[in-house]
Amino acid sequence: MDPLGASPLPARRASEWATVLGGTLEGPDLVVEAACTLDFGFAAGLSFLANPSYRRAWAASAAGVVLADLNTSVPNGYRGSVLRVANPYAAWAEVLSSGIHPVAWTADRPAGVDPSTVLAPGVVLAADVVVGPRSVLHPGVVLYPGTVVGADCILHANVVLGSDGFGFVPPLGSAAGWTKIPHLGRVRLGDHVELGAGTCVDRAVVGETVVGDGSKLDNLCQIGHNVRIGRHCVIAGQVGVAGSAVLEDYVVVGGQAGIAGHLTVGRGSRIGAQSGVAKSLAPGSEVLGSPAVDAREFRRLFAAQKSARG
Amino acid sequence: MDPLGASPLPARRASEWATVLGGTLEGPDLVVEAACTLDFGFAAGLSFLANPSYRRAWAASAAGVVLADLNTSVPNGYRGSVLRVANPYAAWAEVLSSGIHPVAWTADRPAGVDPSTVLAPGVVLAADVVVGPRSVLHPGVVLYPGTVVGADCILHANVVLGSDGFGFVPPLGSAAGWTKIPHLGRVRLGDHVELGAGTCVDRAVVGETVVGDGSKLDNLCQIGHNVRIGRHCVIAGQVGVAGSAVLEDYVVVGGQAGIAGHLTVGRGSRIGAQSGVAKSLAPGSEVLGSPAVDAREFRRLFAAQKSARG
Amino acid sequence: MDPLGASPLPARRASEWATVLGGTLEGPDLVVEAACTLDFGFAAGLSFLANPSYRRAWAASAAGVVLADLNTSVPNGYRGSVLRVANPYAAWAEVLSSGIHPVAWTADRPAGVDPSTVLAPGVVLAADVVVGPRSVLHPGVVLYPGTVVGADCILHANVVLGSDGFGFVPPLGSAAGWTKIPHLGRVRLGDHVELGAGTCVDRAVVGETVVGDGSKLDNLCQIGHNVRIGRHCVIAGQVGVAGSAVLEDYVVVGGQAGIAGHLTVGRGSRIGAQSGVAKSLAPGSEVLGSPAVDAREFRRLFAAQKSARG
Repeated sequence: MDPLGASPLPARRASEWATVLGGTLEGPDLVVEAACTLDFGFAAGLSFLANPSYRRAWAASAAGVVLADLNTSVPNGYRGSVLRVANPYAAWAEVLSSGIHPVAWTADRPAGVDPSTVLAPGVVLAADVVVGPRSVLHPGVVLYPGTVVGADCILHANVVLGSDGFGFVPPLGSAAGWTKIPHLGRVRLGDHVELGAGTCVDRAVVGETVVGDGSKLDNLCQIGHNVRIGRHCVIAGQVGVAGSAVLEDYVVVGGQAGIAGHLTVGRGSRIGAQSGVAKSLAPGSEVLGSPAVDAREFRRLFAAQKSARG
Repeated sequence: MDPLGASPLPARRASEWATVLGGTLEGPDLVVEAACTLDFGFAAGLSFLANPSYRRAWAASAAGVVLADLNTSVPNGYRGSVLRVANPYAAWAEVLSSGIHPVAWTADRPAGVDPSTVLAPGVVLAADVVVGPRSVLHPGVVLYPGTVVGADCILHANVVLGSDGFGFVPPLGSAAGWTKIPHLGRVRLGDHVELGAGTCVDRAVVGETVVGDGSKLDNLCQIGHNVRIGRHCVIAGQVGVAGSAVLEDYVVVGGQAGIAGHLTVGRGSRIGAQSGVAKSLAPGSEVLGSPAVDAREFRRLFAAQKSARG
Repeated sequence: MDPLGASPLPARRASEWATVLGGTLEGPDLVVEAACTLDFGFAAGLSFLANPSYRRAWAASAAGVVLADLNTSVPNGYRGSVLRVANPYAAWAEVLSSGIHPVAWTADRPAGVDPSTVLAPGVVLAADVVVGPRSVLHPGVVLYPGTVVGADCILHANVVLGSDGFGFVPPLGSAAGWTKIPHLGRVRLGDHVELGAGTCVDRAVVGETVVGDGSKLDNLCQIGHNVRIGRHCVIAGQVGVAGSAVLEDYVVVGGQAGIAGHLTVGRGSRIGAQSGVAKSLAPGSEVLGSPAVDAREFRRLFAAQKSARG
């Protein structure tokens, strides 16, 4: 199990899950020991397909069991079992809820915090967090359970790491509500990471939300669940990165920009302030605008628009 | 008095207010016991008209007394008294300041907090807050006086409920400053509400700022004074909703969108990420862009703009 | 030394800095006692030129010593010494690091806090902060070292003043990281300033980040290092102001707007919600859009765009 994309569950056979979820098992009755993403599948891992756009990931997945709806055909290449249910996303939420532990905060210095780490007054930590040497946690920093912070990090006042991400199963009736997706994952920061005041990084649904070595985030940024930020990225104030987006190394993002979920921003790309990135970007891209386009095209469009008026 | 749109004041006759404010009373000398919005007027309530666009609300208002300027005619239909002053908004600020109590924080568990509520370390509560059963308040959550939180709510780290809203009387001279509008109201959350880390909901000027049952807000959202969010809304990260806006049930708002004040977003509307909603939306609307337009129109405009360049 | 644009350093001769930095001194061997901006230069002050666009400021600067690269010619008018180094920005970071003291938080009420100041539970202060009479600090407010708050200020919950600004020397090799610019300056608020919940104001690199008398900022705003906000400005929620921008008096900024760094917004200008200001604005400007243009032009462009479609 790769912790980047999987989180443990109480061990249970696929056939037991079929009974609990009111579903039908197609294929071998494996023992499930973790919830995983399709990309990080393995034999004892259970994943899900809620969206046809992930069909290719399913075909390539090594997950032992995949939750799918009653109609979707199994893609060529997938060799594991399929657990058919009416609503795979709701079933996924129910599976994940089996892995949730109560949150335990501690007034002590947790054992995983290096003796050289500076903990300011007003820092609140879960009992099992890990913080590397020479890191500094300023007042009001909150680390939820499982959070891992590397060496030489600086977390400014009121940074929150590991709060639940934002995921809900849509209402199933006209008067019904949204069902929370439990979050079993965690947040992991590399070394030499600096996070500005008030910045929040959400825990993963399963696996990890990651900020790589040497990356710097300014104040009041919002990093969604399962985002992976590479090494030496620089992200200005009030930027938002939606769930499962990937920023490769050396990406630079201007203030108040937004990056949609489930896309990849290639290495060394530069995203202008207030841009809205809605599609994956090739390495070395420079984009501006909302929705974001190539920076040169943006400047041409803006100039043309102004002259067209005259 | 409906607490949704009114807040108590020390009892005082309208004629006494006329003396204090240097104004003139037209109509019966009622006893004023509350400040109220025009929409939630009642016989012992005092409201104000600072903006001609509220003339229709004034005509229909049951408020016993309305502050108005020296020239505005009383609309057909209004049956209460009028208190004429040079600057109704400044007078309104002065009236409200009579109702303000000092803020009292407590180190104890307030009596209104259900025994089953989880209070993490670093939570700071005013003495008179009410929190329903099974709600969870994570570290750094702050509840200002009067805040009411329902059952089964989750407030993530550093959520702030009930901070003063943002309202100031404009400067009256070239070297003068802005005068604060006192905020007598409160925040009320329904049941099964989840608020992300760092999200802020401001108290009402009078009455309540409301987040309805089952609504979910992501991290770092800003909800202004007197906003009313309906049931089962889903609001992504870094969204801002300006004062007195109304979101009906099942509204979905994408990340970093902004919604202007004093408008209504109809039931089930969907607002795209980074949109700026400047007008009321009919139920079931889908909008994109800043300023926001119908989503299909936005896509046509964007495509036309790109092709026009070529 | 003007504290608005300079911060003390341990006294050291320019020739000693030349040795430490591996550079060459051109001109008198002055004693350096402070780091300063070009605009606030004085005989014992050392500044730097990392960007040719500051050449005019260099020509007019009274700084005793300026760090410059190996090729740039000295502008007419500048009378001080020049310290030639391969990378002036990296050298500047190294100079600044000589002036950094460890951050000391205190559990006591610092001596500089007026007895009439209200400190709510959960406030965390550095030992040397100064807060004027009748100011109110709500729960979770954090004041970093050196912060000065005037009289009659209101800081709502989780406001952070004086966190490090966001400045890094770019990587010098394909696998290298960003080098932090140490921040020696501080934050200074005038009197009657109100800051909304979660708002952050960063300390200056050298000198001060300033919010002038009577200015009001709403929730979740981000004010960068060395920004100077004038008197009686009103800034709505989630606004971002990038480093070294200047807002003159009586500027009004709508929600979620962004203002780029190193520009000036003239007195009384009005910036619409979600605008992106990328150029300096003359006094009395009214702008909308991203990038922001004159408000009338914006409305014409938007109308033309919609009709062109039809």
